[in-house]
Amino acid sequence: MAATDETSAEERLIARYFRPLATAPGAFGLSDDAAIVTPPPGCDLVLTTDGVIAGVHFFPDDPPEKIGRKVLRMNLSDLAAKGAKPIGFLIALALPAAIDEAWLAAFASGLGEDAESYGCPLLGGDTDRTPGPTSVSVAAFGALPHATMVRRSTAKAGDSVIVTGTIGDAALGVLLRRDQNLGERWRLSDVMAGHLLQRYLLPQPRNALAEAVRCHAASSMDVSDGLAGDLAKLCRASGVAAEIDVAGVPLSDAARAAVAAEPALIETVLTGGDDYEIVLTLAPEKLGSFRAAAQAVGIPVTEIGRIAAGQGARFVYGGKTLTFSRPAYSHF
Amino acid sequence: MAATDETSAEERLIARYFRPLATAPGAFGLSDDAAIVTPPPGCDLVLTTDGVIAGVHFFPDDPPEKIGRKVLRMNLSDLAAKGAKPIGFLIALALPAAIDEAWLAAFASGLGEDAESYGCPLLGGDTDRTPGPTSVSVAAFGALPHATMVRRSTAKAGDSVIVTGTIGDAALGVLLRRDQNLGERWRLSDVMAGHLLQRYLLPQPRNALAEAVRCHAASSMDVSDGLAGDLAKLCRASGVAAEIDVAGVPLSDAARAAVAAEPALIETVLTGGDDYEIVLTLAPEKLGSFRAAAQAVGIPVTEIGRIAAGQGARFVYGGKTLTFSRPAYSHF
Repeated sequence: MAATDETSAEERLIARYFRPLATAPGAFGLSDDAAIVTPPPGCDLVLTTDGVIAGVHFFPDDPPEKIGRKVLRMNLSDLAAKGAKPIGFLIALALPAAIDEAWLAAFASGLGEDAESYGCPLLGGDTDRTPGPTSVSVAAFGALPHATMVRRSTAKAGDSVIVTGTIGDAALGVLLRRDQNLGERWRLSDVMAGHLLQRYLLPQPRNALAEAVRCHAASSMDVSDGLAGDLAKLCRASGVAAEIDVAGVPLSDAARAAVAAEPALIETVLTGGDDYEIVLTLAPEKLGSFRAAAQAVGIPVTEIGRIAAGQGARFVYGGKTLTFSRPAYSHF
Repeated sequence: MAATDETSAEERLIARYFRPLATAPGAFGLSDDAAIVTPPPGCDLVLTTDGVIAGVHFFPDDPPEKIGRKVLRMNLSDLAAKGAKPIGFLIALALPAAIDEAWLAAFASGLGEDAESYGCPLLGGDTDRTPGPTSVSVAAFGALPHATMVRRSTAKAGDSVIVTGTIGDAALGVLLRRDQNLGERWRLSDVMAGHLLQRYLLPQPRNALAEAVRCHAASSMDVSDGLAGDLAKLCRASGVAAEIDVAGVPLSDAARAAVAAEPALIETVLTGGDDYEIVLTLAPEKLGSFRAAAQAVGIPVTEIGRIAAGQGARFVYGGKTLTFSRPAYSHF
């Protein structure tokens, strides 16, 4: 048999770990140059991309099954904030030689479980060796009825500002991940510390709320770089101001305990990022039916302020407007 | 003004260098979490992803305007081979701190020129700092009438095997890029050496031929990991064999001179990769009209062999079947 009939190690790796995730017919079992997606009639396709790099977005010794889930969920969170239903994703993997099959098996297994539970199958990918750190980039696709994507730029004066879940957990979880002694300083129970660490490791994107966001929100975005900075972006895009009552921002018991022990942590909570919640605005008369829709899918939503004419997002705490030393996470 | 009204360095960088490339209305000027694409009615969307890492796929001192073009063209080549018309792309950039604004300006400028000339605008992206090498990953999208994507798996016994352009130039160009003395050993003129180097730096994807491929080909794929390995993949996917007349494989004058000077280079030519040509099969009765369509868009096409029952791609040269020490480029 000619040597050219042999499969390469790269093909075997893809077949073993990634083909099982490629359940959509248009993925062709990852055996072609490209995948196809047939969008539902009358729908737009929503496209987003987000990635992680070892040592930048995750700790190199984080559990690999969590890393795969996290990067997919970061992208799913963008789709949720836009009101889109997931369709599938592409993945680009750069792996150092030290990554072994056990790491890859665990990575693919976590990724596959999430792909299934979020209804977002693997459509294709690209796998390379790198002399640098492990890095994973995902491009995710969703669908929604034509021209109904919820934008950042459409908030109106008078809108209520709503946020899902709780804010600041993941940012505190990263600090705790770096220095376990902080748990004692913040007087956290083991359960509380575990909650913060878990919120850093594994976002809970709000895809179950996507349809309610699409049907109710005037504007919406994913909270990934910190509530303060992300809301400021929404205000800039919309040409409006926001006034936020910091005391009303929903915190977990753990985050509340940490801030009580160390009040300056309120800045970390509001600017630290990695929340993967949704911040949205809506006309106050829609608040009731939005709350009912959120309750129906079991996702907590909290009104935290108002949109007004003007510019800038003001975070008011104890009668004073907070100023932040570093308003949002930025790589540059 | 509250600090939260300031834009971050990351936002300014995106606004300056990448927003001008985001000419599609659905890209929203890169100012939202996601982009939208409204596929033409009755069309499938074709998705592909491919990337490059400094020191792996390109030399760190390659001209940045060429790197941006190359990574986009690698993806465009996949769309061409599938018969799809480009719609747009997402980009994920990981940049070391040493990358300066001049590099980025040149990178974006080359990328932007190609995005315009291939009708494939930027739809969105993700930009991170990395402690590792520069890496660029692109996910590109195309459209074609429903269920007409040309697969790898549909070659039939009796088909002619066709290849576009010339094979092996880029693989020889990489060797020359590493060791300029080879030019003399291979007895290349400066023009010939320049041709090989250029073919490595800047692929010429065959998007002008996409419609002809879609209308004529039984099966098709992009030649990116070497003709021998890629054709073997096509044969495996289709459950057929191929017999290729190596003397009929189209070589540039430069490649022909190199192989004449050093006959063992025929393996590099056939297995080295980075060609970004198309290998396709078609029923012999379609050859005439395919040739005419290719001539109409100025793309050379050459018949190099036949598909037969069986398995494996045999490359016959001087009456003997070649065996390759490394049949295709593989990262693992």
